Amino acid sequence: MSESIPKTQKAVVFQDNGGKLEYKDIPVPTPKPNELLIHVKYSGVCHTDLHAWKGDWPLPTKKPLVGGHEGAGVVVGMGDNVQGWKIGDYAGIKWLNGSCLTCEYCEQGAEPNCPKADLSGYTHDGSFEQYATADAVQAARIPKNADLAQAAPILCAGVTVYKALKTAGLKAGDWVCISGAGGGLGSLAIQYATAMGYRVVGIDGGAGKGDYVKKLGAEAYVDFTQEKDIVEAVKKATNGGPHGVINVSVSENAINQSIDYVRPLGIVVLVGLPAGSKVTAPVFDSVVKSIQIRGSYVGNRRDTSEALDFFGRGLVNCPIKIVGLSELPDVFKLMEEGKIMGRYVLDTSK
Amino acid sequence: MSESIPKTQKAVVFQDNGGKLEYKDIPVPTPKPNELLIHVKYSGVCHTDLHAWKGDWPLPTKKPLVGGHEGAGVVVGMGDNVQGWKIGDYAGIKWLNGSCLTCEYCEQGAEPNCPKADLSGYTHDGSFEQYATADAVQAARIPKNADLAQAAPILCAGVTVYKALKTAGLKAGDWVCISGAGGGLGSLAIQYATAMGYRVVGIDGGAGKGDYVKKLGAEAYVDFTQEKDIVEAVKKATNGGPHGVINVSVSENAINQSIDYVRPLGIVVLVGLPAGSKVTAPVFDSVVKSIQIRGSYVGNRRDTSEALDFFGRGLVNCPIKIVGLSELPDVFKLMEEGKIMGRYVLDTSK
Amino acid sequence: MSESIPKTQKAVVFQDNGGKLEYKDIPVPTPKPNELLIHVKYSGVCHTDLHAWKGDWPLPTKKPLVGGHEGAGVVVGMGDNVQGWKIGDYAGIKWLNGSCLTCEYCEQGAEPNCPKADLSGYTHDGSFEQYATADAVQAARIPKNADLAQAAPILCAGVTVYKALKTAGLKAGDWVCISGAGGGLGSLAIQYATAMGYRVVGIDGGAGKGDYVKKLGAEAYVDFTQEKDIVEAVKKATNGGPHGVINVSVSENAINQSIDYVRPLGIVVLVGLPAGSKVTAPVFDSVVKSIQIRGSYVGNRRDTSEALDFFGRGLVNCPIKIVGLSELPDVFKLMEEGKIMGRYVLDTSK
Amino acid sequence: MSESIPKTQKAVVFQDNGGKLEYKDIPVPTPKPNELLIHVKYSGVCHTDLHAWKGDWPLPTKKPLVGGHEGAGVVVGMGDNVQGWKIGDYAGIKWLNGSCLTCEYCEQGAEPNCPKADLSGYTHDGSFEQYATADAVQAARIPKNADLAQAAPILCAGVTVYKALKTAGLKAGDWVCISGAGGGLGSLAIQYATAMGYRVVGIDGGAGKGDYVKKLGAEAYVDFTQEKDIVEAVKKATNGGPHGVINVSVSENAINQSIDYVRPLGIVVLVGLPAGSKVTAPVFDSVVKSIQIRGSYVGNRRDTSEALDFFGRGLVNCPIKIVGLSELPDVFKLMEEGKIMGRYVLDTSK
Repeated sequence: MSESIPKTQKAVVFQDNGGKLEYKDIPVPTPKPNELLIHVKYSGVCHTDLHAWKGDWPLPTKKPLVGGHEGAGVVVGMGDNVQGWKIGDYAGIKWLNGSCLTCEYCEQGAEPNCPKADLSGYTHDGSFEQYATADAVQAARIPKNADLAQAAPILCAGVTVYKALKTAGLKAGDWVCISGAGGGLGSLAIQYATAMGYRVVGIDGGAGKGDYVKKLGAEAYVDFTQEKDIVEAVKKATNGGPHGVINVSVSENAINQSIDYVRPLGIVVLVGLPAGSKVTAPVFDSVVKSIQIRGSYVGNRRDTSEALDFFGRGLVNCPIKIVGLSELPDVFKLMEEGKIMGRYVLDTSK
Repeated sequence: MSESIPKTQKAVVFQDNGGKLEYKDIPVPTPKPNELLIHVKYSGVCHTDLHAWKGDWPLPTKKPLVGGHEGAGVVVGMGDNVQGWKIGDYAGIKWLNGSCLTCEYCEQGAEPNCPKADLSGYTHDGSFEQYATADAVQAARIPKNADLAQAAPILCAGVTVYKALKTAGLKAGDWVCISGAGGGLGSLAIQYATAMGYRVVGIDGGAGKGDYVKKLGAEAYVDFTQEKDIVEAVKKATNGGPHGVINVSVSENAINQSIDYVRPLGIVVLVGLPAGSKVTAPVFDSVVKSIQIRGSYVGNRRDTSEALDFFGRGLVNCPIKIVGLSELPDVFKLMEEGKIMGRYVLDTSK
Repeated sequence: MSESIPKTQKAVVFQDNGGKLEYKDIPVPTPKPNELLIHVKYSGVCHTDLHAWKGDWPLPTKKPLVGGHEGAGVVVGMGDNVQGWKIGDYAGIKWLNGSCLTCEYCEQGAEPNCPKADLSGYTHDGSFEQYATADAVQAARIPKNADLAQAAPILCAGVTVYKALKTAGLKAGDWVCISGAGGGLGSLAIQYATAMGYRVVGIDGGAGKGDYVKKLGAEAYVDFTQEKDIVEAVKKATNGGPHGVINVSVSENAINQSIDYVRPLGIVVLVGLPAGSKVTAPVFDSVVKSIQIRGSYVGNRRDTSEALDFFGRGLVNCPIKIVGLSELPDVFKLMEEGKIMGRYVLDTSK
Repeated sequence: MSESIPKTQKAVVFQDNGGKLEYKDIPVPTPKPNELLIHVKYSGVCHTDLHAWKGDWPLPTKKPLVGGHEGAGVVVGMGDNVQGWKIGDYAGIKWLNGSCLTCEYCEQGAEPNCPKADLSGYTHDGSFEQYATADAVQAARIPKNADLAQAAPILCAGVTVYKALKTAGLKAGDWVCISGAGGGLGSLAIQYATAMGYRVVGIDGGAGKGDYVKKLGAEAYVDFTQEKDIVEAVKKATNGGPHGVINVSVSENAINQSIDYVRPLGIVVLVGLPAGSKVTAPVFDSVVKSIQIRGSYVGNRRDTSEALDFFGRGLVNCPIKIVGLSELPDVFKLMEEGKIMGRYVLDTSK
């Protein structure tokens, strides 16, 4: 039995990049033939949402915009053309809302690389509202009985690190280094890596982070506040260097170090999106060590289902703090100040 | 029936890096239990040989040293432990003379990455002599009836570009850009690429190079002396960018451009060994375009056999100029002056 | 500028499996929001069409049915939700008309394996009519300026053998055996294989087939009417057995022989759909030779685009015979009698 | 410090296939230049040893023969050409004792497929003796501090199932079915599969096996003594069929069932060596489901190191029963009677 759908809803909207974030009533949207209408219960807050609001990325946002792309909720309506969904299903709003499905990138399952990609909370109103529309093909299937607040950060943070690990192409028993292991993405990366059979060394700062990282499954920890030679410390911990590195940290210096400590034949994955940063690698060493640097963007439909499956089986768990949707401006403020540990999740009912 | 093996032979030897290159008589070496004795008929001259002589790479050379690692000849002797070879076989001396066969790199067929790699013309006397020893496991099998002078440059130049193409992991019908298409490595790369079913766009300077590159099989040519915007020109020629790039050119600028023009999801291969050069890639674009940068070193035993098989079937042909072994110093001089087109091959009988 | 679309059209329809094939006027269908309306100019005739008519496969067909799934034509209309197509584009109707896009198979690009797959000329009216509807996501993009009659058989026959070759996962320079090389599928397989850089040995019967097969690019030919020991003959021609086998022939005996002659580590691909046939392999030999048997079904969107790209570049060419749509019953008769060489293509205007 | 090596030793030798198994004194062999001399402490007993003794496989054995190919011991001597080993290292004797290292199979790391493969306990005296020779390149590196009795069965049984799992090419989170889960190979397969992040369903007979299989990490168990429809039961337990199947059971019927229950796109691995058995698959279903059947032989050097690494990290544990070397005839008797649970390991000192 379907919910009754109201005409208006609460949302956080901004008119101009960097302008006022208004918590106010707006109309509930009507799904197009190919869309779901999702009652968003919870939405994670991602750094990308901050970039969207500020407008400091090359790609322009829709305006006015409802941001958000980690929305977990329940299907309450759908267009005539939708297949494979029913009212009451748990569904997720993720970064890629839709794509053309006919270009060469879509054809090979690389929908996030589609030149016509439609992005939730960027070019399409996102999950910082109670009722959002989502393309039925791209919407994420959240396992029944999942905790929706917990599921929310999996939709972007979880999928992204899972995809990065797949991009590394390691095999069970290989060492993977998570650079920035103690943060929100890092802590998810450790858990996915462990569930995939990899051995994890984490890099972060401070003994507290070290304890946390090891509790999540890392076998070794390198504390950059203590180690004089990070490169040597990572090599030593992994008997010659990790087979793969996931650069969750967006420090240019940390990324460049990963080129040095990765094992010969190893894979360095770039996954964060630091505006303006560059990775620099010596050609001679890259050739002689036969290493690879791989950019990994967000996951596709399959990656999303797989990442959610690990979550649904209880193998990954994101530390979250739940606040009301109306408090989004405060969350952005903390984020800008670098004061966030774990992931903030917004309850859209407040 | 075996040749009679003399006690002494002609060789080019140097005592100190950068010192005199002496063409003189030295003893014919005796193969160890695991070694072949090869009567070298022809030897290619590679830039690496120049580096070995000058000693400007981080790794020290053996001294005194007989350089050379593109030696094509005939098996005239072998140690007691050798399997799978017989007197009279055609055999090649290549960069990797031997490896430990027991480390993790050797175990996975990445013998060139073995920490104990023994290198012909660098840590082991090479092919700038008439009779050279070579590890029987690593020695190359040159197809019977091959033209040994033609085969010589395949042993390093051919194998290296073939390996780089394999490293790109393209599929038939994909576009590959050869940056530095008109040179010795580039011209081989075009031919291998074409034989593998790839579509080739070459970059080089001048109309003459353009004609040459197209004659070898390239569908498109970008002349850097004419094009204002190389990146756009390559993208246009390939309907959106090549799926792979083989950076035969060692220009840092050219390498960095390849990051920009490669197609989303594409692969940029580093294969030359410019001392001190760096590749620099913007992290944001690398992630969003999901591109990869891959270092490709020399081929292993399998790559070598495959590269020689293409050669043996007449699909690749290196333009060579044959001079006497005694003329090596002149060849080095031309090489330093950047005056070499194609590949110089030394006839060890002169 | 769009064509004017008539209200009725000519089609070949049957009411019951095996019943009368009526060439008659039926209404032109209206595309759904996600569909194209394609003016079919030419349609190939495939063995599957015969199975659909006879109803001798486990899966029931739609009734009444317009068969056909190799339709090449022009887009003349489309539903409101269609992206990426415009009136006048060349489009193809292929076996897979549509899929759910949300199941695990669709998610990984294996739409042909979707349990809800909608099949042209089987569960959805196909290309044996002048105006047919096709899902815009799955419809094939035929290169502009292509000869539509020539393009038609690529849409199933071409894509299927191309996919089979991809499934074999060979590399350039490897030997592939085409069992049934002289038939319609076989002749396409030889051309695709050659364009992909493989070396081809063909098996078929008679000297005429041998000449034909070699003209198409095969290096070797094994005539089963002459050779006493097919297995040995294939091994000899390929210096130890082919690295891959494409079993276009549906003879159970021929398939089982391919298990015997394939090279150690080699791949035997099953691609035809003989009702009731079985492949039987000795376990001991399969293990010790480490061979693989792989089922390959029809291609997905990407495979289709790639197969058409080879066609568009002039690398493959299907020998066709054009007759009128009204002559379909005669074509089926010839097909049942095994009298067809190459591919029959129907001109829908007659 | 090296052990003193005696002149004679105890061994179990037979002169003719099926003849008397004599426990007697024989000379300690002298290693060739490329060989280690290993003081074998423990040797596992494998079904292959029984086949070697009986001589019921197509390939003839050496005669007289010392069988055994799961020997774990200590390096006590070595030939002049050996690299990478030192006296006192733990070393293992495995099925593949040596190979030519120069054929196409060796070149690609498929040494077990080398036509000149030298087999321990088959064509080369094996581990049913106190001092055995082994090719230094192929000898296994057992982690220091390992329990040698526990390590012995990893050298064949462990490596073989690990290789089979690699051959299946699954990814973490996929379902794998172990057919014959409760036996020696099966119990190892469950543990490797779990450590690799796969989800395991086991098939075997009886509730006791079920408890055991689940204790080792299987999520689901199908009891063939209770289930009427094995195929449906496996599909149900895995929500549509396992992505891979490891046929440790050599029952022809069980192998053929695996073709039916494997998930579309799934991989069926053949790994046992039942003399005379065949696998039979319907061509139609294999194509439409796009499944693959893959023969997996013993592992190569890399597979062996990896399998031992999982063992060394405590992730796999073979249930063993230790008896004296002199008791081998009794072990063979039990094996023939099908009365062995887990793995018998021989203590060579008794």
